[in-house]
Amino acid sequence: MSSGLSAVSIPVFVRMLGNLSTMLDRAVVDAEARKFEPSVLLESRLYPDMFPLRRQVQLACDFAKGASARLAGVPVPAFADDETTVPQLKERIAKVIAFCQSMAPADVDAGAEREVSIKLRDKTVTMSGTAYLNEMAMPNFWFHVATAYGILRHNGVPLGKRDFVGP
Amino acid sequence: MSSGLSAVSIPVFVRMLGNLSTMLDRAVVDAEARKFEPSVLLESRLYPDMFPLRRQVQLACDFAKGASARLAGVPVPAFADDETTVPQLKERIAKVIAFCQSMAPADVDAGAEREVSIKLRDKTVTMSGTAYLNEMAMPNFWFHVATAYGILRHNGVPLGKRDFVGP
Repeated sequence: MSSGLSAVSIPVFVRMLGNLSTMLDRAVVDAEARKFEPSVLLESRLYPDMFPLRRQVQLACDFAKGASARLAGVPVPAFADDETTVPQLKERIAKVIAFCQSMAPADVDAGAEREVSIKLRDKTVTMSGTAYLNEMAMPNFWFHVATAYGILRHNGVPLGKRDFVGP
Repeated sequence: MSSGLSAVSIPVFVRMLGNLSTMLDRAVVDAEARKFEPSVLLESRLYPDMFPLRRQVQLACDFAKGASARLAGVPVPAFADDETTVPQLKERIAKVIAFCQSMAPADVDAGAEREVSIKLRDKTVTMSGTAYLNEMAMPNFWFHVATAYGILRHNGVPLGKRDFVGP
């Protein structure tokens, strides 16, 4: 087994996206039990100028596929961002999990020293793959997964930290 | 620079705990401007059976010091968990940052293959250092930092994702 970046990135994306997919299933079951549309949850936010659950899930996917691709040195797959239902979001998650799993560990490991360039609003930032993973990809990935959980919990979906962390 | 576990754990704990400390400063400024006690924020939760902000900060600290110590193979420092104010929480954060920074990178790297045993409620789980970092320490660490941010945002403290991610 690799002891490089691939060992602390790919399995984390795969695991947490799987947990997120399961949490969405739980949200649907809860919405049906409480007799409202799951779309109510998908459009819920923790604060008016924060993204709704739907966008949190899309962005968690984006940082997982972006990080996997950039570290491995392959093009980042582009998605249409047009999901509006839980089944569509779960399909996006499944596609990203499969993409992450298709990365060659040695390529991802080699990304540690390779320079990664990211276009931000007003500039392009260049950094090592390790710095990119630590300071950009992971903080954003975890942010969106944890905020998705927070939105579901805040709306009363019966989840616990074990659902977030995984088995 | 190490390319092992130390490179993707210690700097992440140090960076994110620093961001958390700054967010607490911002919360105090905001509470003063809106004329309520910062303790109102420290006791706020996203849902009744979730921990309040105060405990989220304590637990983010605990997973950072726990992971650093267990990977490096040194005893985990025990804290009293008696903080009730922002200055006290910031002092806890500063102590944990200093502790994380005191770990020898080579010791943390060696933790990848070492077995780590964690006592849970009803059993003891043993796993490799890498699995412990990926499946227990990191998910919990990020969960508590992101939930702290979510509580502050939900209460209207003017923060953005850039405050969470860092500069």
